[in-house]
This record gives sequence, C-alpha cells and structure tokens, in this order.
Amino acid sequence: MKIAVLGTGMVGETIGSKLAELGHEVKMGSRSATNEKALAWAKKAGSKASVGTFADAAAFGELVFNCTKGDATMAALELAGEANLSGKVLVDVSNPLDFSKGMPPSLLVSNTDSMAEQIQRKFPKAQVVKALNTMNCSVMVTPRQLKDTHQTFLSGNDAQAKAKVRGVLEQFGWTNEEIIDLGDVTTARGTEAWLLLWIRLMGAMKTPTFNLKLVKA
Amino acid sequence: MKIAVLGTGMVGETIGSKLAELGHEVKMGSRSATNEKALAWAKKAGSKASVGTFADAAAFGELVFNCTKGDATMAALELAGEANLSGKVLVDVSNPLDFSKGMPPSLLVSNTDSMAEQIQRKFPKAQVVKALNTMNCSVMVTPRQLKDTHQTFLSGNDAQAKAKVRGVLEQFGWTNEEIIDLGDVTTARGTEAWLLLWIRLMGAMKTPTFNLKLVKA
Repeated sequence: MKIAVLGTGMVGETIGSKLAELGHEVKMGSRSATNEKALAWAKKAGSKASVGTFADAAAFGELVFNCTKGDATMAALELAGEANLSGKVLVDVSNPLDFSKGMPPSLLVSNTDSMAEQIQRKFPKAQVVKALNTMNCSVMVTPRQLKDTHQTFLSGNDAQAKAKVRGVLEQFGWTNEEIIDLGDVTTARGTEAWLLLWIRLMGAMKTPTFNLKLVKA
Repeated sequence: MKIAVLGTGMVGETIGSKLAELGHEVKMGSRSATNEKALAWAKKAGSKASVGTFADAAAFGELVFNCTKGDATMAALELAGEANLSGKVLVDVSNPLDFSKGMPPSLLVSNTDSMAEQIQRKFPKAQVVKALNTMNCSVMVTPRQLKDTHQTFLSGNDAQAKAKVRGVLEQFGWTNEEIIDLGDVTTARGTEAWLLLWIRLMGAMKTPTFNLKLVKA
C-alpha cells in the first residue's frame, strides 16, 4: 500500500520504518522536501522509503498516518491540504499534549472534545481513525515485546476505514482480539484522556515500555 | 478500625458491607440520620454497622471513605464538617462525572485540576488519598473475581495515609504488587481522566466488571 507518514519525530520514524519493513511504499512528509531527518530516515529505511512535503506525502498515500506533535498537527494538516486528504483514511496517532505549563503535560483539548474530532471537523472528507496514541511508539509497532497480551483502540466514524487500520495493526503484530473498536470518533476523548494517566504511570513504572491489558471476570 | 462511609449509593453500600464483613466498625453517613437506604444497609450489614449524618459518621471514623456522587461531594463534605475531617485519612473514591449534558458523561473538573485536589484544598487538615475510583465497586472489594492480576492506584500527599489505605486494600484482597503509588494528590488527574476511557470501554466490553492490568516488556 502507498502510505504517508506525516512527522519526522520518533513516532513518525518508528511507524515509517515498520511500514517500509513490511513492504509498503512510505513517503515521510514534513515542512520541507529536503528535511534532513526525513532524508536520513529514508536512507536507513530503504528503497520503499521516500520523502517530501506534507502535501507531497498526503497526495502520495492512500492511507495517511498523522505522527506530528499535537500542538503542530493542525498546521501540518493544513499544509498537507484538504484536497490531498479527501477520501483518505487519516490515522491520527497524535496526542494534544501541552508542555507549555511545565511537566507533566496537560492536554490542549479534552473531556468534551478531542484532537481527533477537531481534525474530523476540519477535514470532513477524510476518514479519521484515532489509533495507537495510547502507548509508546516502540510498543505500537512491536506489540509482542510485552510479556502478555494487551489492548489497542480504534475510534472513528467509518467502519471500512477502521477495518483498513485494523489490517495494518495486524501486520504490526496485534491480534484481532487485542484491537478494540470503541465506536465513533468522539470515543477518542477516552483514549486521549488516558494520556493524563499514562504520563504518570510512566513515572511510577520508570519505563515508557508498557501498556494496558483489559482483564474481565 | 472505626471507619466512616459517606454516601448511601451502590459504592457506599458495597464498600461499607465489605468493611463490616472484615470486622471494622462502620458508620454510614448521609444527609439524614434516619436515611432509609442507610438503615436498610445497616440491618443487612450486621452489628458492626451503624448510621448517622455526614457529620456523625465523619466524627466517628478515623478513616473516612467518600463514596458520594461527584456532583454532591463538596456539599456532603461541608456537612461532614472541617473539624470532623481534620487529621483524618479521607479516601476519595468519587468521580466528578457530569451527566447533565447527556450520555456518556463528561467530567466536572479535569486535565489541569481534579476532584481530589479540590477536596484537599478545601480541607487542608485532612489527608486525602484518591483510591479505587478507576473501577466498578464490585471489583474494588472483590479484586480476585477477575481472571488475572490487575492494578489499582493511590494518589496523595501523605505517605502514612497512603500506607493506611494500602492496608485496607490488602484486606479487600489486593496484593501489594497490584497497588501502584502514583505520587502526590495531583496524580489523581490521571485516574479521574481514566473515567473518560472507562465509560467507553464499559460500552465496548458490554460489562462494568473489568479492570486494567499493566503489562511490561
């Protein structure tokens, strides 16, 4: 599949590399078509990897991963362009973390709204699926490194779009049972709010390499 | 131990009954000393159980469980009285759920503040410990009904107070390893925000009887 990865940070690099390793054609998008981090990534990721502007990447991908930082997401998606995102599955991995008031971060949007909803409202012709934002990027693409099964979540209005994202998660190593469809895009309020607990758990557990498993009776 | 349970709802009843069953003297507090639900509970819970006003209960207990609904908590604690809460460990089990805007509920306070902090600010001489608010009350007092180990959290400024609450949780059946101390009372922002995910998980899993287990590499 042709896939765009927006963002050159650790999340974009990790997801981009995994997708290329799986045989997908991956274009990493950033503000500049000659971004040094993106070029270095592409060199490492091999012949399936290429770079471009946000718009280049979004035009290229049939699936678009938003891996930009939450406070830069809206600007990045505007540069990607409404036309390039229309009809595309837009996987939102970002979290609206606000580091401006010190540590630990709070959320820029929460409780009665979410980043995923803001994106869906701004780009109504894209099919936004919130996914993978509930864990460290190493766990996202290598779920089997943890000592037990664990959960990941999908939030989005379009069932086909969620099925497509589920397929990619299964390629990452997630089992079908581990992937929980929470419902429409408003359920991203739940997975984004989880970050407020996650950042404190990272402190208490002294590692970012963990996730939650849901346990029933 | 002499323990106050504020609130006559399902959470108060469940925790009150478990505490009485464990041999503690439990006084359930509510607006009226002759609250019918409280009297019915005391009859069922046996000779260790008694009822009274919020103030009666808070004066009685060396440990006070706040099991009132989040939107009624502040009024209940004011009736309990600052003097009766001073020097006491105040276990805050409540969640600031706002059902006024329809389902699913949002939170009355979140992100940059929490209910537990509001209580601690209002009653600076009480030792507030946020605990058990992350799950259904049946799971709180019968953790071993789930099919695996799972986690519960403590948030509070006073180490001795948290140790006291940890001791009660162990009486409920929680193991020491399952109880995670997140840090000071501001970490309750994390466990209260978890409710925004919890309510949606309850929908997706079609049961309130579940909890999270933290899984590491």
